[in-house]
Amino acid sequence: MDSNVNKKSALTENDGIEQPQSVSDVAAERIRNLRKKKINSQEIYSGILNHDKVALSKGITLVESTNPNHKNLANEVIDACLPYANKSVRIGITGVPGVGKSTFIEAFGMYLTSIGKKVAVLAIDPSSSISHGSILGDKTRMEDLVRNVNAFIRPSASGDSLGGVARKTRESIILCEACGFDVILIETVGVGQSETAVHSMVDFFLLLNLAGAGDELQGIKRGIMEMADAIVINKADGDNLNKARNAKLDVNRALHLFPPKASKWQPKVKLASAYYNEGIAEIWEMLSEYFTLTKENNYFDNHRKEQNKYWMMETIQEQILNRFYQTKGIETLIESNKTAVQENEKSPFSAASEILDYYFR
Amino acid sequence: MDSNVNKKSALTENDGIEQPQSVSDVAAERIRNLRKKKINSQEIYSGILNHDKVALSKGITLVESTNPNHKNLANEVIDACLPYANKSVRIGITGVPGVGKSTFIEAFGMYLTSIGKKVAVLAIDPSSSISHGSILGDKTRMEDLVRNVNAFIRPSASGDSLGGVARKTRESIILCEACGFDVILIETVGVGQSETAVHSMVDFFLLLNLAGAGDELQGIKRGIMEMADAIVINKADGDNLNKARNAKLDVNRALHLFPPKASKWQPKVKLASAYYNEGIAEIWEMLSEYFTLTKENNYFDNHRKEQNKYWMMETIQEQILNRFYQTKGIETLIESNKTAVQENEKSPFSAASEILDYYFR
Repeated sequence: MDSNVNKKSALTENDGIEQPQSVSDVAAERIRNLRKKKINSQEIYSGILNHDKVALSKGITLVESTNPNHKNLANEVIDACLPYANKSVRIGITGVPGVGKSTFIEAFGMYLTSIGKKVAVLAIDPSSSISHGSILGDKTRMEDLVRNVNAFIRPSASGDSLGGVARKTRESIILCEACGFDVILIETVGVGQSETAVHSMVDFFLLLNLAGAGDELQGIKRGIMEMADAIVINKADGDNLNKARNAKLDVNRALHLFPPKASKWQPKVKLASAYYNEGIAEIWEMLSEYFTLTKENNYFDNHRKEQNKYWMMETIQEQILNRFYQTKGIETLIESNKTAVQENEKSPFSAASEILDYYFR
Repeated sequence: MDSNVNKKSALTENDGIEQPQSVSDVAAERIRNLRKKKINSQEIYSGILNHDKVALSKGITLVESTNPNHKNLANEVIDACLPYANKSVRIGITGVPGVGKSTFIEAFGMYLTSIGKKVAVLAIDPSSSISHGSILGDKTRMEDLVRNVNAFIRPSASGDSLGGVARKTRESIILCEACGFDVILIETVGVGQSETAVHSMVDFFLLLNLAGAGDELQGIKRGIMEMADAIVINKADGDNLNKARNAKLDVNRALHLFPPKASKWQPKVKLASAYYNEGIAEIWEMLSEYFTLTKENNYFDNHRKEQNKYWMMETIQEQILNRFYQTKGIETLIESNKTAVQENEKSPFSAASEILDYYFR
C-alpha cells in the first residue's frame, strides 16, 4: 500500500547516463558521441574510491544502463572497485507491504550511522520497470536518512527480468562497498521470487513481520520464512505489544521445526517498534553475534565465495537465455506453441523441439 | 540406507534400445543400421495404446535414450500417445532414506490394484547416472507389486542433469497413461532439488515422515514440507504409535502456519503403517477428497495446463544451456574463471562476460 504513494523521490540524485531517446539518427549519433566523451570510467571509479557519492550514483547508473555500449565501461568500473569491495556486511530485509519496511530502514539506518557506520540502502523490485522503483520510491518516509551524509539510498533498478534487476543490484553492492559503505541494506517486497535473489547476495536475511491473530505468517510466501536468519515483529508497541509477544512464541516454535542451517546459526525472533525507535539497537547486537559466529566458523567467507560463483553462472545463464528470447520471431512462436500445449494438441516436448529447431537453424 | 542394497532389479524388463557401446567404428555403424531397422515408432505406440507393457518398456527406453537419432522417434511416440494421456492422477511420493518408501509404495500400490486401479511407479533420482536407479532399484521390497499384472514399475532414468532426468520421467508419464495406467506414483528421495521437479509434474505431493523425538522434520530439506499436500507418518505401529500421534500434532501445527494453497486444499497429516498395511485405504480416501475438490474448483485442470507450459519452457532452457555446456573448451574456461572469482581477482560479471564472448564468438 504505502509503497505506491508518492513515487517522486525526495532523494537528490545525479542523472548520470540517460537512456537513448527517440530522435533522428544523425542527432542520435551526435548525442552518442557526446556521451562517449562524457562517460569516463576512470573518472567514475576514481571518484568512487575517493568515497564520492556523486560518482557512486553515476557508477550505478552506468551499471543499470541498457545501452550495450555501456556494458564494457560498467565492467571496467566494477573491476576497478572489486579490490576495495567485500569489506562490508550485507543484510537483506523483506516483509509484505504495510509491515513498515521504510520506517524500519530509516530507524535502523539512523542508528547505524550514529554508531559510526556508513549505510547504503539498495532495493530489488522487479515490478518497477517503469516507475524506477516502487519500493524505496517513497523517500518522504526516510527524510532523515536521505539527508544523512553517511547514508546512500538508491531505488531499485528497472528491468524486464528479475534476473537482470538482481544482477544490477549485485553489481551495485560492489560499487557501494568500494565507496566506503560498510553496511549494505537490500530491501525487497515479501511477496515473491525476489527474496531468493536477495538471499543469494546477502550475508544475513531479515524478515519483518506483524503480529496478528494467529496468522503471523499469512501473506508470507512459502519458503521465505525458512530463509530468514531473523524475524523481527515490528509495530510491537502500545495495544499491540501483547499480541506481538504471543506472535514471538508462535514464530519461535515454527522456526525450531526447521533443520539447522549450514551457518550453525539458530534463527531468532525479535520484537521492535521502528516508529518509536525501540528494539533497534538489540537487532544490531544480534547481527553482530551472527557475524562473529559465522566469521569464526568460516561460513561467512565460504558463503561469499559460493555466492560469487553462483553469480558468475547466473549471469551466464541469464545472458544466454536473453539472446534466445530476443531472437526475431521467437516470441510469436512460443505463444502459439503455448496455446497448442495448453489444449493438449502437442506435447510440451515436441513444441520445445520445434522452437529449438527454429532457434538453432 | 535401504536404497543402496541389492541394486540388481528383480523386475523383468525388456531391453528395448541399448546405448551405443565402445566398439570399432565399422561394427558400430553396422549395429546402428540394424537398430535403425529395429526401432519402429509406430509399432511401439500401437503396442502402448493396446495396453501392452512390453511396448511401454520399449517406449520409455526410447524416451530415455541419449542417442540423438532417437529424439525424433521418441517425439513421434509421445505425440501419438498424447491424446490418450492426461486421464490419470499423478502422485509424487518423497521422504528421506529409511522412511519406508518402498514398503509404502508396495502396500499402497497393492491396495490400488485391489480396488481396480492400474498403477505405474516411476522414479526420479538424479544420482543414479550409473546404477540405473538407486531408488526403486531394490525391487525385492516390492515383490508382490512387481508381479502384479495391473502394475508397472520402472527405475529412474539416468542422466547428467536433474533437468534431463526429470524431463524423461515427465515424458514417461504420458506413455504410462496412454498404456491405461490410471494412477501414476512418482518416487523421489527427500533430500534435494528433485522434489521441486517432481512437484512440477504431479497433481498431489505426499511426504513420508517418521515419528522422532521432537525432530519430526529433521533431515527434510527446507521447502519440501511446504510443497506437501499431505504428510504421512509411517511406521505408526507398536511402541511407535504414541510418538507418531504426538508427531502428528506437531506437524499439524506447523502446517497451519503456512499460507493457504492455490488449490484451496488444507494439507493433512495421516498416520500409517505400510508394513502392517494400516491406514492405507484412508490415504486413498484423502486423495479422492483432494481430487474431488480440485476438479470441482478447476484447480486440477488449470494446474496441469500450467505444468504443460512450464515443461515446454523448461525443456527449451535445458537444451539451450546444454548446448552451451557441451561447447568445446567451455568447461575449462568456466573452471579457471571460478577460481579467479573465488579469489576475488575478477568480478563474477567480467568473468561471465569473458566466457560469453568465447561462446558467442
